[in-house]
Amino acid sequence: MPALSALAPRPSVLRLSALVLGALLAVAPASAAPNASYPLPPASSRHEAQVQQARAFAQKVLKDFKLPGLSVAVAHRGQVIWSEGFGYADLEQGIPVTPLTRFRVGSVSKVLTAAAVARLVEEGRLNLDAPIQKYVPAFPVKPWPITTRQLTGHLAGIRHYLDRDEAIFQESRHFSSLTQALGLFQDDALLSEPGTAYAYSSYGFNLVGAVVEGAAHEEFLRYMQRAVFEPLGMRHTSADHPHQLIPHRTRFYANGPEGSHQHAAHVDNSYKWPGGGFLSTAEDLVVFGSAHLQPGFLRKETLALLFTSQKLKSGKETGVGLGWRIGVSAQGRRILHHRGAIEGGRAMLMLFPDSQLVVALLGNTYADFAEEQAAQLGELFMTAPR
Amino acid sequence: MPALSALAPRPSVLRLSALVLGALLAVAPASAAPNASYPLPPASSRHEAQVQQARAFAQKVLKDFKLPGLSVAVAHRGQVIWSEGFGYADLEQGIPVTPLTRFRVGSVSKVLTAAAVARLVEEGRLNLDAPIQKYVPAFPVKPWPITTRQLTGHLAGIRHYLDRDEAIFQESRHFSSLTQALGLFQDDALLSEPGTAYAYSSYGFNLVGAVVEGAAHEEFLRYMQRAVFEPLGMRHTSADHPHQLIPHRTRFYANGPEGSHQHAAHVDNSYKWPGGGFLSTAEDLVVFGSAHLQPGFLRKETLALLFTSQKLKSGKETGVGLGWRIGVSAQGRRILHHRGAIEGGRAMLMLFPDSQLVVALLGNTYADFAEEQAAQLGELFMTAPR
Amino acid sequence: MPALSALAPRPSVLRLSALVLGALLAVAPASAAPNASYPLPPASSRHEAQVQQARAFAQKVLKDFKLPGLSVAVAHRGQVIWSEGFGYADLEQGIPVTPLTRFRVGSVSKVLTAAAVARLVEEGRLNLDAPIQKYVPAFPVKPWPITTRQLTGHLAGIRHYLDRDEAIFQESRHFSSLTQALGLFQDDALLSEPGTAYAYSSYGFNLVGAVVEGAAHEEFLRYMQRAVFEPLGMRHTSADHPHQLIPHRTRFYANGPEGSHQHAAHVDNSYKWPGGGFLSTAEDLVVFGSAHLQPGFLRKETLALLFTSQKLKSGKETGVGLGWRIGVSAQGRRILHHRGAIEGGRAMLMLFPDSQLVVALLGNTYADFAEEQAAQLGELFMTAPR
Amino acid sequence: MPALSALAPRPSVLRLSALVLGALLAVAPASAAPNASYPLPPASSRHEAQVQQARAFAQKVLKDFKLPGLSVAVAHRGQVIWSEGFGYADLEQGIPVTPLTRFRVGSVSKVLTAAAVARLVEEGRLNLDAPIQKYVPAFPVKPWPITTRQLTGHLAGIRHYLDRDEAIFQESRHFSSLTQALGLFQDDALLSEPGTAYAYSSYGFNLVGAVVEGAAHEEFLRYMQRAVFEPLGMRHTSADHPHQLIPHRTRFYANGPEGSHQHAAHVDNSYKWPGGGFLSTAEDLVVFGSAHLQPGFLRKETLALLFTSQKLKSGKETGVGLGWRIGVSAQGRRILHHRGAIEGGRAMLMLFPDSQLVVALLGNTYADFAEEQAAQLGELFMTAPR
Repeated sequence: MPALSALAPRPSVLRLSALVLGALLAVAPASAAPNASYPLPPASSRHEAQVQQARAFAQKVLKDFKLPGLSVAVAHRGQVIWSEGFGYADLEQGIPVTPLTRFRVGSVSKVLTAAAVARLVEEGRLNLDAPIQKYVPAFPVKPWPITTRQLTGHLAGIRHYLDRDEAIFQESRHFSSLTQALGLFQDDALLSEPGTAYAYSSYGFNLVGAVVEGAAHEEFLRYMQRAVFEPLGMRHTSADHPHQLIPHRTRFYANGPEGSHQHAAHVDNSYKWPGGGFLSTAEDLVVFGSAHLQPGFLRKETLALLFTSQKLKSGKETGVGLGWRIGVSAQGRRILHHRGAIEGGRAMLMLFPDSQLVVALLGNTYADFAEEQAAQLGELFMTAPR
Repeated sequence: MPALSALAPRPSVLRLSALVLGALLAVAPASAAPNASYPLPPASSRHEAQVQQARAFAQKVLKDFKLPGLSVAVAHRGQVIWSEGFGYADLEQGIPVTPLTRFRVGSVSKVLTAAAVARLVEEGRLNLDAPIQKYVPAFPVKPWPITTRQLTGHLAGIRHYLDRDEAIFQESRHFSSLTQALGLFQDDALLSEPGTAYAYSSYGFNLVGAVVEGAAHEEFLRYMQRAVFEPLGMRHTSADHPHQLIPHRTRFYANGPEGSHQHAAHVDNSYKWPGGGFLSTAEDLVVFGSAHLQPGFLRKETLALLFTSQKLKSGKETGVGLGWRIGVSAQGRRILHHRGAIEGGRAMLMLFPDSQLVVALLGNTYADFAEEQAAQLGELFMTAPR
Repeated sequence: MPALSALAPRPSVLRLSALVLGALLAVAPASAAPNASYPLPPASSRHEAQVQQARAFAQKVLKDFKLPGLSVAVAHRGQVIWSEGFGYADLEQGIPVTPLTRFRVGSVSKVLTAAAVARLVEEGRLNLDAPIQKYVPAFPVKPWPITTRQLTGHLAGIRHYLDRDEAIFQESRHFSSLTQALGLFQDDALLSEPGTAYAYSSYGFNLVGAVVEGAAHEEFLRYMQRAVFEPLGMRHTSADHPHQLIPHRTRFYANGPEGSHQHAAHVDNSYKWPGGGFLSTAEDLVVFGSAHLQPGFLRKETLALLFTSQKLKSGKETGVGLGWRIGVSAQGRRILHHRGAIEGGRAMLMLFPDSQLVVALLGNTYADFAEEQAAQLGELFMTAPR
Repeated sequence: MPALSALAPRPSVLRLSALVLGALLAVAPASAAPNASYPLPPASSRHEAQVQQARAFAQKVLKDFKLPGLSVAVAHRGQVIWSEGFGYADLEQGIPVTPLTRFRVGSVSKVLTAAAVARLVEEGRLNLDAPIQKYVPAFPVKPWPITTRQLTGHLAGIRHYLDRDEAIFQESRHFSSLTQALGLFQDDALLSEPGTAYAYSSYGFNLVGAVVEGAAHEEFLRYMQRAVFEPLGMRHTSADHPHQLIPHRTRFYANGPEGSHQHAAHVDNSYKWPGGGFLSTAEDLVVFGSAHLQPGFLRKETLALLFTSQKLKSGKETGVGLGWRIGVSAQGRRILHHRGAIEGGRAMLMLFPDSQLVVALLGNTYADFAEEQAAQLGELFMTAPR
């Protein structure tokens, strides 16, 4: 969909007088009927001015970061107020990004998984402080117990990817279960005693997924669907299965030389559904985020749990709650957020709890837009009238 | 092609607390597999450099003339060497222009019709100098005889559109036959004695179509299909019937205020199939043009007939042969050409006989690109290697 | 979008053994790598079985009614649980219907307009029983007073379309205001004394729109946007302006002979925004309907007002409340509904208040699917688990 | 593109009388303007009846072989007379197959490569009977000399794929040159003495590609472009590079259970450009085939070389010339042909030299349509009226 930003809200002025038309015909075989003047309906959205600014901003992000395609959505007070696609979902076929286009959200998957954890905690089925073997009995016992709370805060000492993992990923190996994928790291030593150091780990979040599966007594993806996506109406969020046909899934790109694009390397993200393997739309993400701005989907105390920074044993704050990052934007606003960075994808989800605002940006190539751009986008909607 | 090492993900620059930032950078939250370096096949077309220039030129035309969509094709020595779509065939749905997209060619229809005249002349079925009532018996007799030769050179004194015609066109009236559409002007007085003055007239060419119908003893559109389009393989050329489903027909646009676009007025071009009512593709047009660069489809003497300027009785050259315009480009090259200008469309077809080159440009809004742009495009392909 | 109904939830069985492959190669140059077996994620929606039935039903409707395209959505307990497009939004370009595709909803516009009336009543700005000249001063005084309540129940004696109106419509005349369009009927005599007889009238609803405009002191379309569409998040509903570019608007079709399709006649629906001129999506319509199933957008007593059958002076029930039709389905369920029938469009919106279910079906040609099909679709979702 | 097979060539009968309209309005809020009757242009192609049959045949092939998408083209006397897409190029996005859609042609690549061999033979740059080391010096010497003639006839004793090759292919390894890919088999023993047995081998054809490269002193893909594709105007044929952006390349599918589709395994065909790695369109293939029906692109004696069955040393005919298969259809007609079978693709190219007819069918999944269907398609065009 091309940006229809300049759609005329005013009468056309392209009426050629008969005189001018006659003059034209004297020199050229013009045969066009002059176009009548049609008054168009008034620009109508109360957010119209903001949306125009945001549209220009999105087009600038598209250009500055050389994105093939970008999807942006904004929700205010629980309602999507703007959602639009920019650029292409498929460069070979010329398919525009639309609000239906599904992107790889990468590590934004972690906050989706965190919602499942929150639900299980509310239901009393998951004890955040129990050793994770209670839910994942096959996981090797380590020198110290590991808890789900630690895993969701990147405090458990589980390692992140190493070079040898990258080599495995390049084989596009498919894992048919979360527990099978745990094999990639489960026998490795912890980086440190749990609780003593922050170490970002997607593997750690895959283990969180296994905990969800064990606590829910239900396959992880099925539980996500039933307990998170369906209750929130996120009908466009799903695992990025490489072989399944998934409506409106974007193609995935990488940068080529001289500003060109090429296809991203083929990847199979089945090793990391919980930590980085979901597809979603910008609209679904802002709906998801909006459900975290007031009690309803989750209780007030559960939201507090998600959004309270965990601490090291030393007492030092980490800035990460249960999956969510907690911070302050360059403009001085409280923000709750996560980014995603993945082969063929870039994602930002940011909540401004004091303004009841949520923004999401999704790109179909690995690019460097991030918290700065999300915060700038949010600012454009801060003075929402009434 | 250069290596694609630019794909390697660099550590992202998170704007979080120093603690988190440090921790993240130590292991990098990137989960993208580094993309290997893939040598791409060599740029291969011998016209590659020319095409790149032409592509940039086409994009500039698209932008400068605020076209929603543009299609360009170039043929050399009888073969299409480049054909590409730019912009959108449908702005509401985001459908790109492709080489299959059909545009309104407006008055370029006149040279299509002229080819039918040429075929009938070759078959001995049409005498260019006979009074047209020989083929269109119902056409009112005028103070002077009118011939097909005069009509094809805009020398017959038939009037062009007047204001009252525009009013009729705006009603989108549908004509079920050419002869019915002749009623729009057939009873009007001639502008001057045939042969004495040049007066461009689409109505005159509609009458040429009726002559074709009469000489061929076959409905005009059917004869065009059988005698012109099929022999030349022009499978994407057809009448712009408003209700028929026609594959890949573009939407038609008009300019709105401030550089915006809106839908063109709804029109029914059935009143002017021969003079301006065809749809075609840039590829079909350059194929058509190429068939006029050497004998084959038509004989050598017939080509000479088409491309020799007719003269007024005063002996003055008109610069128009049988439908075709004959001239010299700003760059000093012999050109044979016609433009089209129509509600929702703009068209240029230009032949450079000395270079065996043909170019076509088709736009889906009434715009002012014309002979100058066609000539510039042609120049880009003049130094075709070997 | 093709219906992806049969997406494989189970492992593929297309693995060729080396033996079989060898045998194939003996007779054929097969070079395909055998396709590995990929376990796909489980079918996950709790409505999965219902959706499969509904998808088959929609495909049958598409086929039985020879629709080029169809969009269907279902909401339950205030949430969209299914939304899918079938067939084509554009037959010439092969564009699939998606949930974003906008259709002409025809007279379903009347219940949209009724929501604006309800809002104004709640705000105390509109007295349903005041003579309409209070809000539309220029409307000619008739022998009896006419009220907004009567107009919304088709009881005011305003006539519907006559042959001479159809002739006017075929001219595709554009009206730049509601009041200008009232000129089509405002000087005509009433069919009967208001309140004494039911006479369905789109003109009457256009007058309701003028009342809204007068009561709101705001242009009708702007008020609809601000007071109805925006509060409900209906971002894909707008006036069917013929010249404006409207994202994802379907093309409009008519039946040709022998089951074929052709383009619908070009129409300009500006004469009837309130009574039949809106574009919408099936999703937007079920969101709209859902907002009528419990207080929130409107108060409980206002909902009662909308959904209580008005009576003739004789005391006879009309089965129509404020715009809405009130009835019982063939299956014996209470239903609140409206259909739309328009050049190039067919629409059904049906609410099942006892089941908190809403369904919408939108087609892009005039066809005969109606209440029966909507009720059947609703039945498929009646046993929604939990 | 949906098949527009039933486009109405006759007047519509959908005119509702005022009476009927009135009756409708009594029971339903119909507001549709009756659709006027528009006479459509006559069905015009002289092949119209044949094309209608062929279209039905293609739709049957699409259905019977459960193809996501299919492209079909037919050329007669050197001209494309029909070309049409069926089904989908992209099931996730709902993109129709069009004549521009590029498919994997698999082993049809062998006859493309054979044309390059033929060109080099004509130019005197390639001796078919010289040991191949003359052109590929690094190729290991075998117990017997191997010639290009033998390779093109599958007589050289080079092996085809084994299980261990399939394992390598599944790694999607990318080869940056033909000679690098020869490493997959070049050190293996010959199956038999060259000339003594027929053994179909794609590896053998990859070696032919290396011979072309050596004889032409030009990279294989570049020579193909310059010496075959450009002279023939095959602008839609190219190597199926996995990372390059290639306009209108189809997605590739595999069969799932119960008639469903899924994505084909990701493959990198760089190990077999000459033997099976090209993308093309049905139109390009019939243009290619047509150039083999009379001298022009190749000389008469070169065509004879391509189309004369090679013999074993025993004197037994193999039915294979230089790459091409030579046979007789079930209907008794002489045919020259090749099929392709590849992950995500199926291809058939068949020439009927006695009828100057060429047909091509391309599918985007591995399916079993083959010579039988091509021959049946050809039969439909056999009685082509002048």
